[in-house]
Amino acid sequence: MNYRILINILGWVMNFEALFLLLPCIVALVYQEPEGWYFLATAVATGLVGIGLTIKKPKNNQFHAREGFVLVALSWILISLISAIPLCVSGRIPNYIDALFEMVSGFTTTGASILPAVEELPNCMNFWRCFSNWIGGMGVIVFILTILPLTGSNANMYLMRAESPGPSFGKLVPKLKKTAMILYIMYIGLTLLQLILLLFGGLDLFDALCVSIATAGTGGFGIKNDGFSGYSSYVQIVVTVFMFLFGVNFKFYFLLIMRKFKEAFSIEEVRWYAILYALATILIAIDIFHLMGGIGESLKHSAFQVATVMTTTGFATTDFNQWPVFSQTIMVLLMFVGACAGSTGGGMKISRFIIYIKSALKEVATLLHPNSVKKIKMDGKVVDHETIRTANIYLITYILLVSASILIVSLDGFDLVTTVTSVIATFNNIGPGLGVVGPMGNYSSLSILSKLVLIFDMLVGRLEIFPMIVLFFRDTWKR
Amino acid sequence: MNYRILINILGWVMNFEALFLLLPCIVALVYQEPEGWYFLATAVATGLVGIGLTIKKPKNNQFHAREGFVLVALSWILISLISAIPLCVSGRIPNYIDALFEMVSGFTTTGASILPAVEELPNCMNFWRCFSNWIGGMGVIVFILTILPLTGSNANMYLMRAESPGPSFGKLVPKLKKTAMILYIMYIGLTLLQLILLLFGGLDLFDALCVSIATAGTGGFGIKNDGFSGYSSYVQIVVTVFMFLFGVNFKFYFLLIMRKFKEAFSIEEVRWYAILYALATILIAIDIFHLMGGIGESLKHSAFQVATVMTTTGFATTDFNQWPVFSQTIMVLLMFVGACAGSTGGGMKISRFIIYIKSALKEVATLLHPNSVKKIKMDGKVVDHETIRTANIYLITYILLVSASILIVSLDGFDLVTTVTSVIATFNNIGPGLGVVGPMGNYSSLSILSKLVLIFDMLVGRLEIFPMIVLFFRDTWKR
Repeated sequence: MNYRILINILGWVMNFEALFLLLPCIVALVYQEPEGWYFLATAVATGLVGIGLTIKKPKNNQFHAREGFVLVALSWILISLISAIPLCVSGRIPNYIDALFEMVSGFTTTGASILPAVEELPNCMNFWRCFSNWIGGMGVIVFILTILPLTGSNANMYLMRAESPGPSFGKLVPKLKKTAMILYIMYIGLTLLQLILLLFGGLDLFDALCVSIATAGTGGFGIKNDGFSGYSSYVQIVVTVFMFLFGVNFKFYFLLIMRKFKEAFSIEEVRWYAILYALATILIAIDIFHLMGGIGESLKHSAFQVATVMTTTGFATTDFNQWPVFSQTIMVLLMFVGACAGSTGGGMKISRFIIYIKSALKEVATLLHPNSVKKIKMDGKVVDHETIRTANIYLITYILLVSASILIVSLDGFDLVTTVTSVIATFNNIGPGLGVVGPMGNYSSLSILSKLVLIFDMLVGRLEIFPMIVLFFRDTWKR
Repeated sequence: MNYRILINILGWVMNFEALFLLLPCIVALVYQEPEGWYFLATAVATGLVGIGLTIKKPKNNQFHAREGFVLVALSWILISLISAIPLCVSGRIPNYIDALFEMVSGFTTTGASILPAVEELPNCMNFWRCFSNWIGGMGVIVFILTILPLTGSNANMYLMRAESPGPSFGKLVPKLKKTAMILYIMYIGLTLLQLILLLFGGLDLFDALCVSIATAGTGGFGIKNDGFSGYSSYVQIVVTVFMFLFGVNFKFYFLLIMRKFKEAFSIEEVRWYAILYALATILIAIDIFHLMGGIGESLKHSAFQVATVMTTTGFATTDFNQWPVFSQTIMVLLMFVGACAGSTGGGMKISRFIIYIKSALKEVATLLHPNSVKKIKMDGKVVDHETIRTANIYLITYILLVSASILIVSLDGFDLVTTVTSVIATFNNIGPGLGVVGPMGNYSSLSILSKLVLIFDMLVGRLEIFPMIVLFFRDTWKR
């Protein structure tokens, strides 16, 4: 482990965190909220430490996959630890573990909350929560890469690979820094488009901004106690459309911009995503028809809820705890599937499932024709052996970690549905589960131990397992 | 597909089924039960058709993996279809789907029942149910192999491989027929030992016989309405010990008989099985202590319940629906793990989990040291690439099929816990789940569609997925 470079880059992460912390200060200034001082103090302290750590450039630029994993994991932990300080010290969320839960939930775009009434928070804090969704959606490290030329020739590659979601890592253009910039430009563009559409819908600037950035990151933090049920149908529909859009692999938009329409629409993952979304929406709309009393209402609620679960956003217009079991089952299954790789959505990712299904079909072919040599293809290209193996191991570790988490959380003594869905909803970065942690409930009543486990699960889920688990191996820390 | 050999061997399966059907006739004779006639009639009809199909020897002896899978799957389906006839025609289980559910549950050693009160059945039928557990435990085809010299030089191997549980297929001795015989001799020996110990405990011969054969197959069909709660502690303890013993890889006993003690006790799977069993028993005993009011009672119930779930037997001494959620969670997780490969128990098998955990650890090592070449070993031997791949695909198809099943069963509108555990408990061949299908409930209230899905799941679970799913591929049926 190259500790010098580790400390240097963590210093840069702190510098950026200090800049981020100035944003809620501005909001506090606008709304004249005294809590702004806590953000300012944290920003200054963080910035000072950050500058101290970055003054000395590391001489040894050696950077390997190992450093990439560890650095990404530590960056996310560090950012969460710092960002929770203002919430805690200001007394708004007096328990630090609760504040940490809230911010990890924010940065990992989970959107699970320990707050029973978010409207009681000052605007600067609600903005901070939603902003964590936004920056976490596309990635903290990716953001830093757009601006900072990191030392070490291959540091960029290893860092971006460790942070990007999905089974395989695709560059849009040969240069990584440029890829990161293009991603963020598209991201900002889509966010602004949603902002404008929401302003048209009559939301005030602050509401529209918070909703837009929380949707963009598919994070799911709301600023209203009743979630989205109080907003107009127009706003709900705009949010539905944009949740869906932010769950699409960003490569799709890049190809659109490049006018490669045919290529864009032939991305298998995006097609399956759309088909699965449409199918689930229709099935649930039929299933809840008798509760809603109209095709329009059924479709609207179903489309919203499927989008929120598939993209792992976690907004709610209605309490789906009350829905029929068939609809609930579809929702729970979709919680695992998640959105596209290379999107801001979480879960296992559609492309992994495509790989899984193709592997299974290939196995049957091998059983029937032992001598056949068939390769698994995606978008016309052969999927290499390593990608398949890693996807398989991902599934295995996923199951092991989810099982272990459920076992620990079950010590709290909540019912099985609450216990199991609290883990699934945090691990997949969705937010609300069913039962006590359902869309109209929250995570405050869980024990400290369970909250720590779920904090770990949110990070593991967002960083796709490996960066977090290598932290626990002795080999990782050898010089 | 070699249809001639398919029909010929299915004919032999029917001949054996006819012989099996004579056993309940004997029971009916002893207890003077008129239902014996239905068994006799079915036996005669089955035998006549069987003889008709086996008269002509197939000329073409070509036999490949494909034939092996299809034959094993069709044999199990055929045996279940025939064995349900006497139950249905006699009017004891008037609905044929219910009767089929009961018998598939028997042969697959699931032990899930649609009967609210088994004591109302005549003895010959209860014996038939328990006998199906016994013959299904070690395997129908394995049994036939011990007696019949099958045509086709490699038919034996492909058939036994398709029917044997576990990720890798291990012969005990070079000759397959001899392996099958040794397995059945050990199986009969252990069953007799349990029978004698139960007779000592004061059970009458019929009760002792039914309990022994249902335990041996880790099937779980009981002949008392209140499960095992009415039996003495001695009987409960004997059954606990034998459930555990029948969940051990039979290779262990073979090595013991060969006096290779060191080799026997160093089988990794058996060691992990014992450790996991002890750990779960202790944790649950602590968790239910306040309900039982004594260390002895807690340990007894915990040891029984963990054995019944891990070996996927499915007996019950108590309603674990009432247990704390932590204990319930352990039980649900153990439902997936199952017993050792090469035992009569079901589930995913301990050895698959060992492969999974070792694969995950190897992946971390590869991430940290990209150039390291590490092989996965089990019992000191390198696990070949194909075994690992098949184990991975097994996990994938397992998850896909379980998910699809849960989705269909959820249409019945039962609560989530009932819906999910009914699928898990049948797929893993356990029997009782939680909720409506809990240890003191039964499967009768499910819809016909759900019962058909669960019948499929029981067969898929027992035959380890692939033999059943190849039936649905067009390629399978090509000449």
